[in-house]
Amino acid sequence: MTEAIRKNFASDNIAPVSPEVMAALARVNAGEAPSYGADDETARLNDAMRAVFGCDVWVYPVATGTAANSLALSAATAPFGAVVCDQSAHIATDEGGAPEFFTHGAKLVPLPSADGRMALADLDRALSDNALGGVHTSPIQTLSLTQSTEWGTVYELDHLNALTRRARAASCATHLDGARLGNAIASLSCTPADITWKAGFDMVSFGGTKNGAMAAEAVLVFREDLARNFERRVKRGGHLWSKQRYLSAQLLALLENDLWLRNAAQANAMAQRLAHGLRRHPAASLPFEVQGNEVFALLPERSVAALEADGWGFYRWTTPPGIEGVLIRLVTCFATEPCDVDGFLDSL
Amino acid sequence: MTEAIRKNFASDNIAPVSPEVMAALARVNAGEAPSYGADDETARLNDAMRAVFGCDVWVYPVATGTAANSLALSAATAPFGAVVCDQSAHIATDEGGAPEFFTHGAKLVPLPSADGRMALADLDRALSDNALGGVHTSPIQTLSLTQSTEWGTVYELDHLNALTRRARAASCATHLDGARLGNAIASLSCTPADITWKAGFDMVSFGGTKNGAMAAEAVLVFREDLARNFERRVKRGGHLWSKQRYLSAQLLALLENDLWLRNAAQANAMAQRLAHGLRRHPAASLPFEVQGNEVFALLPERSVAALEADGWGFYRWTTPPGIEGVLIRLVTCFATEPCDVDGFLDSL
Amino acid sequence: MTEAIRKNFASDNIAPVSPEVMAALARVNAGEAPSYGADDETARLNDAMRAVFGCDVWVYPVATGTAANSLALSAATAPFGAVVCDQSAHIATDEGGAPEFFTHGAKLVPLPSADGRMALADLDRALSDNALGGVHTSPIQTLSLTQSTEWGTVYELDHLNALTRRARAASCATHLDGARLGNAIASLSCTPADITWKAGFDMVSFGGTKNGAMAAEAVLVFREDLARNFERRVKRGGHLWSKQRYLSAQLLALLENDLWLRNAAQANAMAQRLAHGLRRHPAASLPFEVQGNEVFALLPERSVAALEADGWGFYRWTTPPGIEGVLIRLVTCFATEPCDVDGFLDSL
Amino acid sequence: MTEAIRKNFASDNIAPVSPEVMAALARVNAGEAPSYGADDETARLNDAMRAVFGCDVWVYPVATGTAANSLALSAATAPFGAVVCDQSAHIATDEGGAPEFFTHGAKLVPLPSADGRMALADLDRALSDNALGGVHTSPIQTLSLTQSTEWGTVYELDHLNALTRRARAASCATHLDGARLGNAIASLSCTPADITWKAGFDMVSFGGTKNGAMAAEAVLVFREDLARNFERRVKRGGHLWSKQRYLSAQLLALLENDLWLRNAAQANAMAQRLAHGLRRHPAASLPFEVQGNEVFALLPERSVAALEADGWGFYRWTTPPGIEGVLIRLVTCFATEPCDVDGFLDSL
Repeated sequence: MTEAIRKNFASDNIAPVSPEVMAALARVNAGEAPSYGADDETARLNDAMRAVFGCDVWVYPVATGTAANSLALSAATAPFGAVVCDQSAHIATDEGGAPEFFTHGAKLVPLPSADGRMALADLDRALSDNALGGVHTSPIQTLSLTQSTEWGTVYELDHLNALTRRARAASCATHLDGARLGNAIASLSCTPADITWKAGFDMVSFGGTKNGAMAAEAVLVFREDLARNFERRVKRGGHLWSKQRYLSAQLLALLENDLWLRNAAQANAMAQRLAHGLRRHPAASLPFEVQGNEVFALLPERSVAALEADGWGFYRWTTPPGIEGVLIRLVTCFATEPCDVDGFLDSL
Repeated sequence: MTEAIRKNFASDNIAPVSPEVMAALARVNAGEAPSYGADDETARLNDAMRAVFGCDVWVYPVATGTAANSLALSAATAPFGAVVCDQSAHIATDEGGAPEFFTHGAKLVPLPSADGRMALADLDRALSDNALGGVHTSPIQTLSLTQSTEWGTVYELDHLNALTRRARAASCATHLDGARLGNAIASLSCTPADITWKAGFDMVSFGGTKNGAMAAEAVLVFREDLARNFERRVKRGGHLWSKQRYLSAQLLALLENDLWLRNAAQANAMAQRLAHGLRRHPAASLPFEVQGNEVFALLPERSVAALEADGWGFYRWTTPPGIEGVLIRLVTCFATEPCDVDGFLDSL
Repeated sequence: MTEAIRKNFASDNIAPVSPEVMAALARVNAGEAPSYGADDETARLNDAMRAVFGCDVWVYPVATGTAANSLALSAATAPFGAVVCDQSAHIATDEGGAPEFFTHGAKLVPLPSADGRMALADLDRALSDNALGGVHTSPIQTLSLTQSTEWGTVYELDHLNALTRRARAASCATHLDGARLGNAIASLSCTPADITWKAGFDMVSFGGTKNGAMAAEAVLVFREDLARNFERRVKRGGHLWSKQRYLSAQLLALLENDLWLRNAAQANAMAQRLAHGLRRHPAASLPFEVQGNEVFALLPERSVAALEADGWGFYRWTTPPGIEGVLIRLVTCFATEPCDVDGFLDSL
Repeated sequence: MTEAIRKNFASDNIAPVSPEVMAALARVNAGEAPSYGADDETARLNDAMRAVFGCDVWVYPVATGTAANSLALSAATAPFGAVVCDQSAHIATDEGGAPEFFTHGAKLVPLPSADGRMALADLDRALSDNALGGVHTSPIQTLSLTQSTEWGTVYELDHLNALTRRARAASCATHLDGARLGNAIASLSCTPADITWKAGFDMVSFGGTKNGAMAAEAVLVFREDLARNFERRVKRGGHLWSKQRYLSAQLLALLENDLWLRNAAQANAMAQRLAHGLRRHPAASLPFEVQGNEVFALLPERSVAALEADGWGFYRWTTPPGIEGVLIRLVTCFATEPCDVDGFLDSL
């Protein structure tokens, strides 16, 4: 089945594992180690995260982004509360109800936006309206943003700061879905601290899997009160690995020598190459800025069908209201190479 | 820290990963693969499970035993229902409330037993009493047994059959926590089919992590109605890996050439060697039959303290009512070698 | 505080209890009666409901509409499922997360509409899109409609039938929030059967409290499979009264001599009188058809403020996008009299 | 059906409503009143509770004891936490899983006792063991006691104080199930304050229904932090009455002129009369002290059958281990009269 696909731009999760991560797994596979996170590898991971983010941080490695996001939301949101997010957010559209499961039924309040970036005015209105609701409505207790967004755009730091400041003024906790955090950092040329706790986030889902790991994400918690009992939530969700060294080793390998940022930069560069080629194509148009590793393109139906027939892998996306043509999503990753992109463009 | 421990009998989860499993992970780490279980490796795993168990089976790989058990229970038990189990069961004592989380608050009904093996008369009484309860009590809808048990004992096939027959007569679903299933099969010299669906089980948590995997278990579902929507539960729990090939590959490596049974047999043999040595020690006594890879021993406090001082790793266990001395638990695994056991016995 | 208000059009729940209902409560207050619904009054209620609806029906009396709606949804919707409804639905806007609580985190999928009546095309699109979603989205399993709607409009029977037919084609269960069911029946001059099971509904929240009861609603279940274990859900929600005769007696009193329909007709007539008067007022406009017992009116700010200063009770409502002026909601009930309405109109 | 029963000792919930409560309901049934607890009757209830308990208290009226208990537990216990209680506790045996529902799956830890009164040593051991458990066990966060107990016994104030002190030392919240609180106060001749907050309780389920109300209990919260968001939980559980005046009026009528204590005293006196008569019967024995309004008696099977044949209503109870004969439960209430008791004794 995979032979039919020449190069797969369907997602960054169809990629293999970075060789450095595989090497790290092999390296830790010697002898015994204490279980459930009492191992040396996990201790080293905690140190490395503190160094990378330049502050105290509680680190909870888990295997999936859905788990990372949902656990983070559950630590900040009561069962009777609500989470405000962009309507394109993964937590709202693609996690099979996991946020509702882990929060025990908190409501998601998705706000429409032009390109996946929540407007400050919209957040302001949502919070103001919600504050009037009383006992009959679910109080918004958490703001969750996605960086880079599901439409491949990246929030400026000022924008993030304004949103988190408004949320905190309403006593909300703040969460960043960083499944593609590295891509955003690579795009903004900022530090990991700038884009997370310095931008007003209490918790971050630090993405590893889409960026070279096998199955490794981490919830980073920057507020001690939110970290309290967090490990109990991890355990209760079935997400505490007994052999945790193999989870920590993956994340550690990504941090070492900035592999995560180099992988992300490579993916971003390939997205730029793709976007550049598409912009020169007369029948193609790009509805969103290309800032991370996702390229959305509007193409005529016959071009899309021809690319599919040619064996290229990608998704036809739900076309947002008001946009004409067939919208496709192309995702690059650390393993994408120039010849892959050029081949696609030639085929088109 | 780990240097202080000479050889660690604390748990079978302190072991590294079997070389064959590591090799399988390296092997599948080439090129792209469809995500979320649409990969070839997962297809091969499904075939292999069907072959090993000799029947149709729905296979749901997850990373932890807590997830496997809890997902299985949630498929069979309504939020208002109950699960009957032995009071030593992992689901009742060691999973941080995960069964309650995944079932949305179903009750556990733990029955006391002498050695971790539920007596038929006790199950019969529990089900009979429960049937009288009406709307004020939680109806028992699932029987969950553990094989081999948490006390290192193994149910005979007849015993299992009698228990599942009684449960089914009460319209209960039946679940086997097989975190140490291989050890039980190795102990009984039966087939995987004999001990699972032929013994009346609808669902089995097939353990891999304690038996050589990195982080891989599988829920095996033998009843189509229980498999319906099961994958939705996996996803909603955050347990669906995007790069599932790396989960399936671990399990496949265990099945190939019966690695799982060979690993389990090695662990069992080391437990026998340990038990044999302990039985010859004048101050030691073994309160339970040693049939799997766990040995419980009663020793004088000073012997226990001396072993600890010597750097041996093991747990002091809660002494069951009516038993004198210090109860310790010693667990062997595929990586335990005769010299480890002999060293411990010498030290004692 | 209540003295400041001349006549309260804030809600139909500010009314007292119908004298007939009070009399019924006094009548059943003699001697002992079996508890938890085994009493004669409850048996009589079941018979009366069967007679009124002309079919077999399982009847679950509870004290609040929030409980009735949430229990009904929970019987039809898995925790990983979703409920499609109008965005004005009480379950989506005013129940403090109760539907999410009782369903254990199912998602609500609210569809926009012009006047509280879901368009068939919108339902069709929502169900079609949802069917494509796979494991990452929450499957819509229930359609919930409100009759009369939250905007005081009433669905025609054909409209209801078309919506339920489409939902059933997608294997959805169907629920009617009938907090104001009597008002809709009075408006349509149909039978209770026509508007419920004959219109394709599996479950109905039969409203009593807004229509003359003290605190009494009933979930009517027309499908045996949905009734199974329903009482367990009622009990588990804390909604099973030990002295259930006092709950059943309220509902029975409403059914006797069609009190519920007479009460509703009186409320509707008063709404018509109010609407008629408002339509003649040069500065007022009515954005929605007035078909039940709710009147929404757009008025200039100074008129609204003057009415408030005069002591009239009503709510300023959130003005829907695209509508100018101050939107107020006026609700009539069985206890509203012509002089109340005329006084309000005079004051305006 | 009810004719077959001469006098019903099955439960205190088979009784009718006290005339004073019915009168109060009739009294408040005039004109309009603000909904959802903004009414004058509710304000008066709050004042009355403060006066009766002699302290600040947050009062949440609900219709059932199951709701009161479960809501209280949910305010103090995290979903991953646990509640320690006596194994006879109503929350553990008779609420159909409601505590697990409202707490979102917290565990109950029931402790065995001789007569429904938890021993301090048992609580101490349970808390000490639990504190060692770590992330794999559910931390006990709440102590729930029942007064008077399910076996008709009453805790001395010193006993209560010792238990709550131990619980608070372990940072547990403390809850009293006072479904029969009045009976305990009448038995101890103490003040309502003595037996509640002065005895170390943070929350009390104040029982009304078994003691003369139609359907009215109140959660009394004595700690401001536990009261925060409590009303949201009430609403989300479907337990916030729109016409709350009718709920508050019931409780207010019970408080006025100490009706609740007079009703309880009458029930207790009838239980004493019953116990006295039974003690003189050669074949009867009373396994527990009779201190409230419940009498448990051991009788020969033929006596029990004869009483049943005679039309007396009562429950055959599950005989506790180690007790011979048929155990029956006889419950008296405010409406029980001497002739009822004497008739039963004569019949025996």
